[in-house]
Amino acid sequence: MEFKKRTHTCGELRESNIGERVVLNGWVATRRDLGGVIFIELRDRYGITQVVFEPGYNPEAHEIAKKLRSEYVISIEGLVRKRPEGTENPALETGMIDVMVDKLVILNSAETPPFQIEDDIDVSEDIRLKYRYLDLRRPVMQKSLLLRHKMYQITRKYFDSNNFVEIETPFLMKSTPEGARDFLVPSRLHKGKFYALPQSPQTYKQILMVSGYDRYFQIVRCFRDEDLRADRQYEFTQIDVEMSFADVEDVLGIAEGLMKEFFKDIWGIELSTPIPRLTFDEAMEKYGSDKPDLRFGLEMVTLNEVFKNSEFRVFKESIQKEGIITGLKAEGCGEYTRNQLDGLTDYAKKLGAGGLIWMRVKDNELEAPIAKFLSDEEKSNLVSKMEAKPGDLLLLLTGPRLKTLSIMGTLRLEMARRMNLLEKNDKHALLWVTDFPLFEWDDETKRYYAMHHPFTSPRIEDIPLMDTDPSRVKARAYDLVLDGNEIAGGSIRIHSSELQAKMFKTLGISDEEAREKFGFLMNAFKYGAPPHGGIAFGFDRLVMLFAGKSSIRDVIAFPKTSSGISLMDDAPSFVDDAQLTELHIRVRK
Amino acid sequence: MEFKKRTHTCGELRESNIGERVVLNGWVATRRDLGGVIFIELRDRYGITQVVFEPGYNPEAHEIAKKLRSEYVISIEGLVRKRPEGTENPALETGMIDVMVDKLVILNSAETPPFQIEDDIDVSEDIRLKYRYLDLRRPVMQKSLLLRHKMYQITRKYFDSNNFVEIETPFLMKSTPEGARDFLVPSRLHKGKFYALPQSPQTYKQILMVSGYDRYFQIVRCFRDEDLRADRQYEFTQIDVEMSFADVEDVLGIAEGLMKEFFKDIWGIELSTPIPRLTFDEAMEKYGSDKPDLRFGLEMVTLNEVFKNSEFRVFKESIQKEGIITGLKAEGCGEYTRNQLDGLTDYAKKLGAGGLIWMRVKDNELEAPIAKFLSDEEKSNLVSKMEAKPGDLLLLLTGPRLKTLSIMGTLRLEMARRMNLLEKNDKHALLWVTDFPLFEWDDETKRYYAMHHPFTSPRIEDIPLMDTDPSRVKARAYDLVLDGNEIAGGSIRIHSSELQAKMFKTLGISDEEAREKFGFLMNAFKYGAPPHGGIAFGFDRLVMLFAGKSSIRDVIAFPKTSSGISLMDDAPSFVDDAQLTELHIRVRK
Repeated sequence: MEFKKRTHTCGELRESNIGERVVLNGWVATRRDLGGVIFIELRDRYGITQVVFEPGYNPEAHEIAKKLRSEYVISIEGLVRKRPEGTENPALETGMIDVMVDKLVILNSAETPPFQIEDDIDVSEDIRLKYRYLDLRRPVMQKSLLLRHKMYQITRKYFDSNNFVEIETPFLMKSTPEGARDFLVPSRLHKGKFYALPQSPQTYKQILMVSGYDRYFQIVRCFRDEDLRADRQYEFTQIDVEMSFADVEDVLGIAEGLMKEFFKDIWGIELSTPIPRLTFDEAMEKYGSDKPDLRFGLEMVTLNEVFKNSEFRVFKESIQKEGIITGLKAEGCGEYTRNQLDGLTDYAKKLGAGGLIWMRVKDNELEAPIAKFLSDEEKSNLVSKMEAKPGDLLLLLTGPRLKTLSIMGTLRLEMARRMNLLEKNDKHALLWVTDFPLFEWDDETKRYYAMHHPFTSPRIEDIPLMDTDPSRVKARAYDLVLDGNEIAGGSIRIHSSELQAKMFKTLGISDEEAREKFGFLMNAFKYGAPPHGGIAFGFDRLVMLFAGKSSIRDVIAFPKTSSGISLMDDAPSFVDDAQLTELHIRVRK
Repeated sequence: MEFKKRTHTCGELRESNIGERVVLNGWVATRRDLGGVIFIELRDRYGITQVVFEPGYNPEAHEIAKKLRSEYVISIEGLVRKRPEGTENPALETGMIDVMVDKLVILNSAETPPFQIEDDIDVSEDIRLKYRYLDLRRPVMQKSLLLRHKMYQITRKYFDSNNFVEIETPFLMKSTPEGARDFLVPSRLHKGKFYALPQSPQTYKQILMVSGYDRYFQIVRCFRDEDLRADRQYEFTQIDVEMSFADVEDVLGIAEGLMKEFFKDIWGIELSTPIPRLTFDEAMEKYGSDKPDLRFGLEMVTLNEVFKNSEFRVFKESIQKEGIITGLKAEGCGEYTRNQLDGLTDYAKKLGAGGLIWMRVKDNELEAPIAKFLSDEEKSNLVSKMEAKPGDLLLLLTGPRLKTLSIMGTLRLEMARRMNLLEKNDKHALLWVTDFPLFEWDDETKRYYAMHHPFTSPRIEDIPLMDTDPSRVKARAYDLVLDGNEIAGGSIRIHSSELQAKMFKTLGISDEEAREKFGFLMNAFKYGAPPHGGIAFGFDRLVMLFAGKSSIRDVIAFPKTSSGISLMDDAPSFVDDAQLTELHIRVRK
């Protein structure tokens, strides 16, 4: 099909173009027929321009225009004119002009799409994913993907200008089942053997530091065969960064520089640095989360001191068991009804709490089911510690430390929602959470797991604790949190093969197993490994937050459903047995 | 381990820094002990700086320095001084100065590496790959990877500034076994089903055009489970590009713009455009290759006209069978001995030729075994057609057209090597090869295959031939060739679902099969697909050529061997049966 090359995009024409002959290519967004004159809104990714077919102006073009329907692809040629007075459309950037058409070529027709190509549509996400080629045509989706494009460029420009080297690492690597579940890829040439898709390029980037690349970055796909959620996909993209001769401050500084760029270029905000920091312990005590949302206060208060001599059985037992008593003050919620409070109690119980203690703060008393078990001194200390005023509602939880703090953290978010604390502001809150525990104990398998990964360095002063009390060892690890979402995490790594061996030992990984899985890294460390550390940003989540979306599926061109299906092309699918035979595998009965 | 942050890299200090106190971090490249003074060449990726330990200057640092060995990682602090006269090293950029050390911290020790960390080493590639972390430390490898880094940035900057949108496409996709062999990934949630790793994002980028993204690019990993060679890896990187409302000229123009950037920024050459073009037919006749090396002439000449009435049986039969007679003139090779000529004949036979006809051009005759079968007129016309002079050697081949041209093409390259035609110049030759056949006939399976892929558009005027004589249909396809290497290939795509259906029919792909494999693309085409086309550059090969290397393994950080093994970490490997059970597969007995 012959057609003329466009002279302008559909977002480009202005009053200064009036009188010019132009060629536009695009999709028919809307079509109106007013008194025999056909008005088409022609759309491409750059914008919308109205083009006009008048029978008197060019009967031939007008005749063909009668065939036009939504989403037809056309090429038009015509004259830019000022729109007749009163018909301007200030909502469009091109709204002061339109194009009088004298030539029309239909490049392709279109069936009626299953939903309108516009921002606000009321269809299920499944339908959108099945017809993703149409969903992606909606301006709101295009805007998100264009933002994503912009964020790639900002990221690479930033790291390039800071002397980081972009290096690609393999996607077909060795399976090292520590951490999440690997995706496996059967080998054709090596019967019974498998490659794994990388969960992250962690070992490779450390190898690159051993190789002297000094500063590495990559925007890279990673793979985890874990169950999916709104902010999880089997394959996800991360900004992967590693630096040699670096300490925590160096890595944090580099990461903060990137955030400054994003804030400025996308939100027009001058981010002031350094970004505030909380240790993991502080974050848990104050916000009940290792990724606290600091856009609002609503700080939790630890009350063990207030109740250290309490005769109230629940508090007493909790303190004896080295548990925690934590409180949350909901300002002005003292009028919550019994019904509302029962609802909150149920909510807390569903999260795993034994119960929820509530107290309405009155002028000279605390109105609460447990009030009678508390001494006047306790009540007064509680009010003072929590800086409570009449009309406030106090919520208390007690139990095992981390679990209880975590439940209160979730309750804190729920209260913020009920109190509309988020709607009151549009500011953003960034913070670092530092000093994570190095290990997590797993009751089921009776062993320690690395909270981040087994290459994370302990704080130097904590190394002796690895032998005596691993649970108290803190890591040189840090997470970056934006508006309650973890957007990056990293650590200073172990760079000595001895310390790495000690780490594997603490994790209950035998020498043999360690050698088999990570031998190449430990070997590399023998030939002069520099001190190094790094960080990785969850790119999909970053884009989601900067785009103001609530699902990463809205910022990924072709995402999968929560059961890992691509509804557009029906992957995964059955394959020919011949393919499996070549790969030396069969499906189990 | 506490150490001071470097103030400079090892490539940075100059005479202007003399007198400054500095901190350097790096690797011990060499160590010399001269009369009690220890000289260390300290290396990082930025360069080498000499640092000096004098017992009289700082006895403590000197004492520690005695322990230093090759590849130890150290941090030093000291004073920059002008090197004593006569000890300057102009080969180093830092060679006018050295650093008198008064503080030394050993950050890590190193075992003796299996090979020297220097450019010219005499070890097998297998050893280099096993110790890739050391191989990558060699300056020559770092230079290649830094060039690769630069080429990523040039590429993205170019496409970004030309309004292309970078969009990531999935790595877990549907298996569509048309083309090369897929890598498969078993699904855990969907028993017996598999994802495939993309051979290219071809269908996705076409979908993105249907979605109105207008101009797309991505630097993306692709996967083909095919046997490996020096310029093939299981996973390779391509610059993937697609444009809407574009014709051949638009795509070629965009690609040429990128090549201009590479030529200028890497080689300092102003590439003049448009880049010359040859049709596939011309390239085959003149150079016996669809990726001819035009850095030297040595054009082949078709001689059917000269011998159209020949009585020489071999020529006569060839012409009757619509075969070809092609000749190559090797200037000044008329003195080749019988032995050399037998060698060439064997070479041609190994390539599949029935035999090689040679003729030494003498003053007034052709000295050749077949001379007696040729008429004087034929001899004279031959000499004239080939513009031969006394002292030249003529080589002739005859047989089926494409096969014979291709053998002569290989012989042409061999003769260029023997005649040292390549060493005589350092220029580079770019060209487009266009008008490829759309189909290739396969004698074994008795069907046509798409020469590029089944989405390639035929020339509009050739569409009727798809029904009558597919072999004569030319594609709107183009390859870009640099110095005899195909570096990019692409085409204008089919954008009508009817033509796409016709294409599948010609390829013997049933409606049902087409629907199952490519149904989503054909469906997408029903909703308003714009005319579009694109191109993909082989990025590894591009970097290889611009780095002046002969293997892509030298420009990939972690390549695999020709049997698909990563010698560094021994991937692929056996995995736990528990992993396979979760994936519902087992290894065949």
